Amino acid sequence: MALRAAQAGVARIIGHSPTPSDGVAAARAGAVTELLQDVRGIFRRADFVVISAPPAATMHLLKRAAASQFGRGGGGGGAYLTDVSSVKRPFVERAAKLGLSANFAGSHPLVEAGQGGFRAARADLFVEKIVYVTTTPDSERASREVADFWHQVLEARPVTLDAAFHDSMVAWTRHLPQAAAAVVAATLGTHGPKGVTYGHETRSVTALAARQQDALAEVLLLNREALVDALQNVDRSLQELESALQTNDAQGVRDWLDAASKWRARLGS
Amino acid sequence: MALRAAQAGVARIIGHSPTPSDGVAAARAGAVTELLQDVRGIFRRADFVVISAPPAATMHLLKRAAASQFGRGGGGGGAYLTDVSSVKRPFVERAAKLGLSANFAGSHPLVEAGQGGFRAARADLFVEKIVYVTTTPDSERASREVADFWHQVLEARPVTLDAAFHDSMVAWTRHLPQAAAAVVAATLGTHGPKGVTYGHETRSVTALAARQQDALAEVLLLNREALVDALQNVDRSLQELESALQTNDAQGVRDWLDAASKWRARLGS
Repeated sequence: MALRAAQAGVARIIGHSPTPSDGVAAARAGAVTELLQDVRGIFRRADFVVISAPPAATMHLLKRAAASQFGRGGGGGGAYLTDVSSVKRPFVERAAKLGLSANFAGSHPLVEAGQGGFRAARADLFVEKIVYVTTTPDSERASREVADFWHQVLEARPVTLDAAFHDSMVAWTRHLPQAAAAVVAATLGTHGPKGVTYGHETRSVTALAARQQDALAEVLLLNREALVDALQNVDRSLQELESALQTNDAQGVRDWLDAASKWRARLGS
Repeated sequence: MALRAAQAGVARIIGHSPTPSDGVAAARAGAVTELLQDVRGIFRRADFVVISAPPAATMHLLKRAAASQFGRGGGGGGAYLTDVSSVKRPFVERAAKLGLSANFAGSHPLVEAGQGGFRAARADLFVEKIVYVTTTPDSERASREVADFWHQVLEARPVTLDAAFHDSMVAWTRHLPQAAAAVVAATLGTHGPKGVTYGHETRSVTALAARQQDALAEVLLLNREALVDALQNVDRSLQELESALQTNDAQGVRDWLDAASKWRARLGS
């Protein structure tokens, strides 16, 4: 994001990274014009802040922002704050409790999470990508400013929506498939036969579980209400299929597979 | 298989296809030396027959083979018959009932099912690929002959095993992932929110469901006992994860995802 902001002509970009070498690499590449060890300096001076961190760290940084009187400073034009977690309601609620509502709107860019630090940075990562931006009655102005940032600086396609609606949607679209891949992988690992050859089918359905995502457990827990609701539907479907198999209900099993493949075909590749 | 057999120097290859144009294409490419409209002619004259058809058609062809006195003809050297379904016990049992035990051993090559008829044929499809070949006390000789065929003509790696053991193994390694992908796709299609953007996670975990496989329902039903057993383990795992989420058991959810990603990482890509 910093790399793209620099290319887009943002004159002053202050960075902070818990990995100092990463900050230095970003500075050398001209992606940041300044590095700060202490994030409080950023919350005091910047008029637009993006927190890009795992959920627990994001929560902590919101607290630091409030403690640093973010948005209460001089300027007059207002200062705005966003995060990039894939769950939104817990952050919007925390921001409200911390008195940051007028200055905060959460973001959730639909891109594959970057790995490998600044070395892996791509300035065009967000171009034409959908970014969800939360809006509440108290944060309308902040939502507009954050959406404008995504659109004008990163050339993304912001979509503003309610945080609770967002979370229930991503429970289905992102968290359910990740949980399902993990469930299949863990089941095969724990209960599957040993010493057998797993083929492309198993690799395909469990592929998402291959990548260790440190923040995934945090994210799933933060969205547990909506996710459990979605998973219970998977559960019921699974039991319906089991029952069609057990009763040798050929038409039932066929209908089932048809519904699956028709829906999947519409999804595209 | 015919294409490779021709290249390997098999002098006489008799083909039959329910799609006449496919048989003609195979004959033009030199993959078959003869085409027969009536499969009974093949069962009467060939000394090695491969049935490559969906499960119900394979069952029917076994009956035709028995009715054509397969293996009872002149020669003296014996005649052998195999199929290529991914379920084995029902075919081994049917062959035994039909009096074909001494002449039949089922095969299950671990390759992605071909689509597109002869146009899509590749002579090296089975090279170095594992092929399971069933063995029973009554079919030891047939198992050896069928395994030799796979090894010498198609350069595959035959592995002989008991049909029931085979079926319970593939219930886990092949049918469970296919059923799981279908369950997730059908659940999202039926109960998921409408008009939302599904991302790469959903595409990944449901990818297997994209391809309409006419024979899949037949296969899953034929292996329903072992498959239901395997799916019930998925079911239990799913409920364990739901319960860890519901009780906000962070360590439990983390352990769960760790187990999944460690097992998946060992599987390779």
